[in-house]
Amino acid sequence: MTITVPFKQVDVFTSKHFKGNPVAVVNFLDVEEDSIAHATLQSIANWTNLSETTFLFKATDPSCDYKLRIFTPMCELPFAGHPTVGSCQAYLEFSGRGAVRNLYQQCGVGTVELIIDGKTIFFKGPKAKAADISSTEIRNYEGCLSAGFSQKPMLLDVGPKWVVGLMQDAKSCYDLEPDFSKLKALTTKYGATGLIVAGKYSGEDKYEMRAFAPGEGVAEDPVCGSGSLALAMYLQELNSYGASYEFEISQGGRVHRDGKVSANIEHRDGEVEYFIGGEAITLVNGEISV
Amino acid sequence: MTITVPFKQVDVFTSKHFKGNPVAVVNFLDVEEDSIAHATLQSIANWTNLSETTFLFKATDPSCDYKLRIFTPMCELPFAGHPTVGSCQAYLEFSGRGAVRNLYQQCGVGTVELIIDGKTIFFKGPKAKAADISSTEIRNYEGCLSAGFSQKPMLLDVGPKWVVGLMQDAKSCYDLEPDFSKLKALTTKYGATGLIVAGKYSGEDKYEMRAFAPGEGVAEDPVCGSGSLALAMYLQELNSYGASYEFEISQGGRVHRDGKVSANIEHRDGEVEYFIGGEAITLVNGEISV
Repeated sequence: MTITVPFKQVDVFTSKHFKGNPVAVVNFLDVEEDSIAHATLQSIANWTNLSETTFLFKATDPSCDYKLRIFTPMCELPFAGHPTVGSCQAYLEFSGRGAVRNLYQQCGVGTVELIIDGKTIFFKGPKAKAADISSTEIRNYEGCLSAGFSQKPMLLDVGPKWVVGLMQDAKSCYDLEPDFSKLKALTTKYGATGLIVAGKYSGEDKYEMRAFAPGEGVAEDPVCGSGSLALAMYLQELNSYGASYEFEISQGGRVHRDGKVSANIEHRDGEVEYFIGGEAITLVNGEISV
Repeated sequence: MTITVPFKQVDVFTSKHFKGNPVAVVNFLDVEEDSIAHATLQSIANWTNLSETTFLFKATDPSCDYKLRIFTPMCELPFAGHPTVGSCQAYLEFSGRGAVRNLYQQCGVGTVELIIDGKTIFFKGPKAKAADISSTEIRNYEGCLSAGFSQKPMLLDVGPKWVVGLMQDAKSCYDLEPDFSKLKALTTKYGATGLIVAGKYSGEDKYEMRAFAPGEGVAEDPVCGSGSLALAMYLQELNSYGASYEFEISQGGRVHRDGKVSANIEHRDGEVEYFIGGEAITLVNGEISV
């Protein structure tokens, strides 16, 4: 039986139309979750052809505002960054809860805290640790790139498993030419989602960042939330900040986008917490027939 | 300045939701074409991430019903099959002209005639000729495939340049495993859009078909209109039909779709004309902010 429900396609991590990372959001808040087959959700996500399509359901955990299920064209994910920010914006519009400051998203990794600060939506990063990778693995990654790392890369498992490394500066990151077929073979071999490279803008608390995941069918992701989280954790590891540090990440220029991410590393009572945020604009607004 | 215009995402060449080939259609019928920059159209098509996004404008040729501009994520095309069928369905809904039988689409290749036959929309194929390719080229293509051709492939330039070849039967076509990186290198070398393979279902006027275009960033196209046209022309060349011949094409099973195309080869006063058609269902209906 066909049902028609509200639908939005939201541009995430940008304030400029069509210059961020899109996510399709289907509103099933008024539909029983067990009346919709997993295969139906997967078909929709395969059809939109976006890196992620999400489905809003009523939360089953009473401490959460809604439940989010996140699908790539091929599978369901426990968590993802830009879909979380875009779906939160869609939820705010669908529910009419404009003035709220905090929301709690129920998803595969558990409860994710969201902070709405003006036009910017932050998610609190799930706990993760940086792990060293071997010098052979580092050399192999460098063999896929037109320039070497300026700091030793590490592996950050934030849900997706990103290998993160710093380049000399912002320009060398922007100019980098990866060999995508070699990189695809390598990330598959090492079981990594992909490679994040970043370079600092001189005199600014700002990094240029690029995310390559050819093994996942995404040669270069335009603007990557989980990758931004991995970068923040990597920088904390490298620089051992003793106090809170906020910085900006610019992404997507090489793939015709203009993404902007805010990353806050917060030190609270001896704990380090990570918040990743950005703006989200609904560009397509309507209904979908399921 | 932001304007908001009607938007649809239409599923083409299927009667089952999310099982055809999607096209995003933006309705600029009430907007002056020269007020919208080419770069804006390209940004939208890059963002939707679909193989094609189309834009309906008022026709400038008074013999046409509308003008269609067709974009891939990377460039503008003079013509494409499934976007033509899907955009015609969207036009019928936008304009409320439900009972019409013929429409004329103004696009890069000139005027394309459309026939609306119940739920099925046919386009008349632009003129094209089959050309032989060398035995070396054929051997090279076979080197990318897990099985050989049963009939010598030819090149069909129908806008996109498809190399088309028959396999033993429908099953051998469905089961075929291409080496996408070798095929990408080869189609790029020979200047072809991609490779079409097809195999006949025994005892039926029906072919299984697959379309590979890794050089265009589409490893396997789910359901391909221009490829179906190329197949019809190739079969006419191989079989020298002396009278009209109608057949069905099944596509997309290997990429989670269930596409169905009707191909009519019509002999009229010594001329051969080709009509490619299928159903189209609007699944997303709303507005887009440009």
